[in-house]
Amino acid sequence: MVVEPSADARNAAERMLDADKASRALGIELTELSQGRAVATMTVTELMVNGHDIAHGGYVFLLADTAFACACNSHGPVTVAAGAEVSFVASARLGDTLVATAEERTSYGRNGIYDVTVRRGDGAVIAEFRGRSRTIERNGEAG
Amino acid sequence: MVVEPSADARNAAERMLDADKASRALGIELTELSQGRAVATMTVTELMVNGHDIAHGGYVFLLADTAFACACNSHGPVTVAAGAEVSFVASARLGDTLVATAEERTSYGRNGIYDVTVRRGDGAVIAEFRGRSRTIERNGEAG
Amino acid sequence: MVVEPSADARNAAERMLDADKASRALGIELTELSQGRAVATMTVTELMVNGHDIAHGGYVFLLADTAFACACNSHGPVTVAAGAEVSFVASARLGDTLVATAEERTSYGRNGIYDVTVRRGDGAVIAEFRGRSRTIERNGEAG
Amino acid sequence: MVVEPSADARNAAERMLDADKASRALGIELTELSQGRAVATMTVTELMVNGHDIAHGGYVFLLADTAFACACNSHGPVTVAAGAEVSFVASARLGDTLVATAEERTSYGRNGIYDVTVRRGDGAVIAEFRGRSRTIERNGEAG
Repeated sequence: MVVEPSADARNAAERMLDADKASRALGIELTELSQGRAVATMTVTELMVNGHDIAHGGYVFLLADTAFACACNSHGPVTVAAGAEVSFVASARLGDTLVATAEERTSYGRNGIYDVTVRRGDGAVIAEFRGRSRTIERNGEAG
Repeated sequence: MVVEPSADARNAAERMLDADKASRALGIELTELSQGRAVATMTVTELMVNGHDIAHGGYVFLLADTAFACACNSHGPVTVAAGAEVSFVASARLGDTLVATAEERTSYGRNGIYDVTVRRGDGAVIAEFRGRSRTIERNGEAG
Repeated sequence: MVVEPSADARNAAERMLDADKASRALGIELTELSQGRAVATMTVTELMVNGHDIAHGGYVFLLADTAFACACNSHGPVTVAAGAEVSFVASARLGDTLVATAEERTSYGRNGIYDVTVRRGDGAVIAEFRGRSRTIERNGEAG
Repeated sequence: MVVEPSADARNAAERMLDADKASRALGIELTELSQGRAVATMTVTELMVNGHDIAHGGYVFLLADTAFACACNSHGPVTVAAGAEVSFVASARLGDTLVATAEERTSYGRNGIYDVTVRRGDGAVIAEFRGRSRTIERNGEAG
């Protein structure tokens, strides 16, 4: 069952991404958003590759992290990344369009665990990412 | 004891970074390199921040990942990132200069484990990163 | 679709668990096994708790690791744990029966990534574990 | 500089280990304790091995986790494991005495990051573990 985020939550996640100059500058687009779930895409540009035209793992991480941020903020309260684990599975190359799908796995107290899979256009898995989120208290303290 | 990398290894790591358009475009500089160790710096620009002028965690990861790549390639053979774990400790803001120090922790077979600490100019820790490396076989297979 | 492991693969995983004195001594039982998937259970005993009758996290890890080992050996070739990441979500107490469900997430070359969720009898999540596996070459080298 | 834990903190960590039936049953001993640092040892017994007399990774984790718990409780306030990442580097065999050395890497708010290296008697590294700790609030809430 897909639970749609409330209009407020959707606005919060979209405003977050709009205001995120880093993600906009990279051409990252949010293509799906529901409660605890987000899909984001990015095309590998000249600025994201090494000397062999292979995407820098840092940019693959950045895309996954952005999808993760949208998913964990889809619930409404401001939520930040506390940490993440990533395995680099295959290479992405100049011109590849990558799709990162983030899904909430579990939540407890102010903590959440989200799984993000990054795929190439041909469906091949590029990276598996697991993010740990933390909802911020009203006083701005992540704890 | 600091073991200096051979001239060949140093050239390999420096050529790698020179050829890495992603790292150059971000203004990342390699300030130290010895056997199994590298220090890289990056200043947080407008393109790396969100709507609150706080650096996107993905760019902090990218800096750490670059220092890690230089350290694990300082031994000579071509080595890639197999994965990493990162904890985001504190925020970096627009204009902050970040310093990532990567040190080899252990190696076994074609695997290596590297610890990278990212600090702000005031010495505050921003992130703790642990990378897993894998030396590539001659046939280009990471295994 | 559930793909049943071949009789040989099933025998391999079951023989592995039978021969595993550590798992047997803890009363761990394998209750399901299919291709890339395994479910194992364990009841928290006096020997697994701290002074407050809360299960030591190490035993929760051990159960998850056992389910992971059965799942990644369900394909046939001998496969070992290269590493794992675990988040402890809630406590388990003396007498609780824990159920660990391991599922393959992706595989590439000789590597695999498996997600294991450990739950209490009431369905509450106790831990989320992600394991990295490595298939051993015929010469016994994990690489 | 080694900062000795206060008598109270030392007592807290030692009481914790004494009360920990799990650790005692495995013969784990705390051989060093100072502020943010602990060393624990364990000998691999018949009950910890698989069919090839190789120690189950779960027991190696358990030893590392125990050293981590002692180190993060050396500061006084009750602190629990929030999670951990482990890489299995080499095998331990029946009869091997393992030594786990835990050291605090950084702390922030109620969070801590500790590195634990597990070695065999011959000095060979068996596992590298990185634990994330969380100090519990007075109301018993880990947050």
